[in-house]
Amino acid sequence: MVEIYRKSLFDIPKDIVYLDGNSLGPLLKGVSEESQRVINNEWGKKLIKGWNESKWMDQPVRVGNKIAKLLNGEKGSIVLGETLAVKLYQALSAAIDLRKDRSIILTDTGNFPSDLYIAQGLINSHCRNLKLKIVDPEDIVSAIDKRVAVVMLTQVDYKNGRMHDLHNITDLCHKYGAIMLWDLAHSAGAVPVDLKKSRCDFAVGCTYKYLNGGPGSPGFIYVRPDLIQKCSTRIRGWLGHKSPFDFSSEFEEADTIDVMRIGTPPVIQMSILEKSLDIWEDVSMEKLREKCIELSELFISEVEERCPELKLASPRDPSFRGSQVSFSFEEGYAVIQALINDGIIGDFRAPNIMRFGITPLYVSEDDILTAVNSLEKIIKEGLWNSERFRKRKLVT
Amino acid sequence: MVEIYRKSLFDIPKDIVYLDGNSLGPLLKGVSEESQRVINNEWGKKLIKGWNESKWMDQPVRVGNKIAKLLNGEKGSIVLGETLAVKLYQALSAAIDLRKDRSIILTDTGNFPSDLYIAQGLINSHCRNLKLKIVDPEDIVSAIDKRVAVVMLTQVDYKNGRMHDLHNITDLCHKYGAIMLWDLAHSAGAVPVDLKKSRCDFAVGCTYKYLNGGPGSPGFIYVRPDLIQKCSTRIRGWLGHKSPFDFSSEFEEADTIDVMRIGTPPVIQMSILEKSLDIWEDVSMEKLREKCIELSELFISEVEERCPELKLASPRDPSFRGSQVSFSFEEGYAVIQALINDGIIGDFRAPNIMRFGITPLYVSEDDILTAVNSLEKIIKEGLWNSERFRKRKLVT
Repeated sequence: MVEIYRKSLFDIPKDIVYLDGNSLGPLLKGVSEESQRVINNEWGKKLIKGWNESKWMDQPVRVGNKIAKLLNGEKGSIVLGETLAVKLYQALSAAIDLRKDRSIILTDTGNFPSDLYIAQGLINSHCRNLKLKIVDPEDIVSAIDKRVAVVMLTQVDYKNGRMHDLHNITDLCHKYGAIMLWDLAHSAGAVPVDLKKSRCDFAVGCTYKYLNGGPGSPGFIYVRPDLIQKCSTRIRGWLGHKSPFDFSSEFEEADTIDVMRIGTPPVIQMSILEKSLDIWEDVSMEKLREKCIELSELFISEVEERCPELKLASPRDPSFRGSQVSFSFEEGYAVIQALINDGIIGDFRAPNIMRFGITPLYVSEDDILTAVNSLEKIIKEGLWNSERFRKRKLVT
Repeated sequence: MVEIYRKSLFDIPKDIVYLDGNSLGPLLKGVSEESQRVINNEWGKKLIKGWNESKWMDQPVRVGNKIAKLLNGEKGSIVLGETLAVKLYQALSAAIDLRKDRSIILTDTGNFPSDLYIAQGLINSHCRNLKLKIVDPEDIVSAIDKRVAVVMLTQVDYKNGRMHDLHNITDLCHKYGAIMLWDLAHSAGAVPVDLKKSRCDFAVGCTYKYLNGGPGSPGFIYVRPDLIQKCSTRIRGWLGHKSPFDFSSEFEEADTIDVMRIGTPPVIQMSILEKSLDIWEDVSMEKLREKCIELSELFISEVEERCPELKLASPRDPSFRGSQVSFSFEEGYAVIQALINDGIIGDFRAPNIMRFGITPLYVSEDDILTAVNSLEKIIKEGLWNSERFRKRKLVT
């Protein structure tokens, strides 16, 4: 049986318990060497010939296929490029165009603020009279009706880890004839996702969290294959062209997922991601999920018993929770800094949320207990209450 | 006196004459090591803390300032991110919004096809009735009038190297009350650009050509400082927010050049670029330009004398030519392949254009003569006329 836990494949510093894979995944062994190979042997030695000989041009779809495999998406349904925000802009715009007779874009307060900004910006500059309707996550199901053009949701809430039922909501969305767009930033590599089975229309995600692609690794976009040829891209970059190297003055949309490409891909960052994805080859997402729940339950029960000052901010039922556990505490910011000082890395989101990513590939039961020991000590002895931990940094 | 020629600072393979810096700049020494440092010591060791401790968050503006110095732009006027295509989309959209009473976007047939696609795509989805007017490059001056909202031009033609007079056209544009947007993809690091003196409104560019940032290095955008607070971004990513880490549900535009940021920056690619830009610290762009013209004149006269079958496709007057010389030849594709086989790397653009980038930082007179010797032999002996050179590759 293949072990889920495989910290030895990562280059995580000793004495660090890393509970922030929900924000930035750690470095895998071999990735640094691979980046050297690409920089020195491909860019350095092959120069412009790298585009052909090293297959840089196909890379965004090739890497997309690796992610598609992980999310059970169809081959040729995912492409990488730019940033999640840009891919969301493209996906939402294409989704809106598929329901020209409706005007509501439905989302919830649990979505990333960035997703709401992108949506509102697109709506403000759109020629149609569109409206962004934002409801509480628990009201999403009742808010889907025949006036809704697009349901745009992030499956797992970045703050509290609350998880939507991707299949049920997609079914409901389709029952009312709306287009379903999922942001899988906190799902890909974290919880089992079955794109094929869900029949969802669009999905986007990022690759620097659970997919360990490194800081600023590109975003991805999924378009259900039967929709690809019905889709337009709002941002017409040269690589969305059917024949980019014809350098024709007229734009002709690619009839493959390439249509969602825009500019020249970040080859080095893409190569780091490609290598980092190797680890998923023999990971069973079901077993990973099982282990994640086991570790999360352990973490919650230990924290609640030993640090009653902290309130669970995540759903208690693991089936409604992603791969992250959050607690609220008035002085959460300082507590997180004290934890980091102790080698336990989690993070903080205003006003009072302490986030802990539970990633069974490199987090063990021992790590969980080490983290809770440290947390207990910091809370009981008030170690967080010092100037150096309370002083806010730029990125929290 | 600081030498312009400094090939020893580059990691260019021996026996290669690289005349394709107009497409992908070569690797500089030390860049590979710097990327290792960022991957292993910053991402690997600091993990999420890298955002604060390694100043990843400020990097897009910090690197922007380095480029601003090279282009004589103001500090805080340039930011890096995503791709040139996306930055152009943002710049053009913001430019259009500054002239709401006019409807013509003027450009020329010498612009990148990609720029035309971006513009046409933006116009197609725009609520205002806009029109893309495309004239021949020599007709630009006479086409600028009071109906024009935005003049959008690429200074140096990617195909034939023809160069617009940036200052005169900008002045004329402003005389008629239009907004000036320059694409400097083939200008930055190639010819002297004085953004401050030109008073141009917007500029964009890429960093993987003459700036040697590596394949897929991010795009840049310049906004004249007095316009920044009057500008809106069409794509509202989280990093364009005034206080992104407040995670507020309402978007509030940054009042600095950060407004043109969108998503999480590609830290590793950005670090490679940052290091690669060091070489410009003591380069005089005027001296580089002088040397470039000297080498280009030599190349042209030698080719014309020894390969009369080739027709000069670039302007003969060096003041109307960028850092690139193009020749047309029916069998140009095969000739370029034969040259590459001989260690002389140039490239080809359909239908018949052979392009040669003249980059004095790493191209010498000897290189020019070596290239012409090879070219003469290939043409005179018909060495290009073989199946292996005529067979088209994906990226030409």
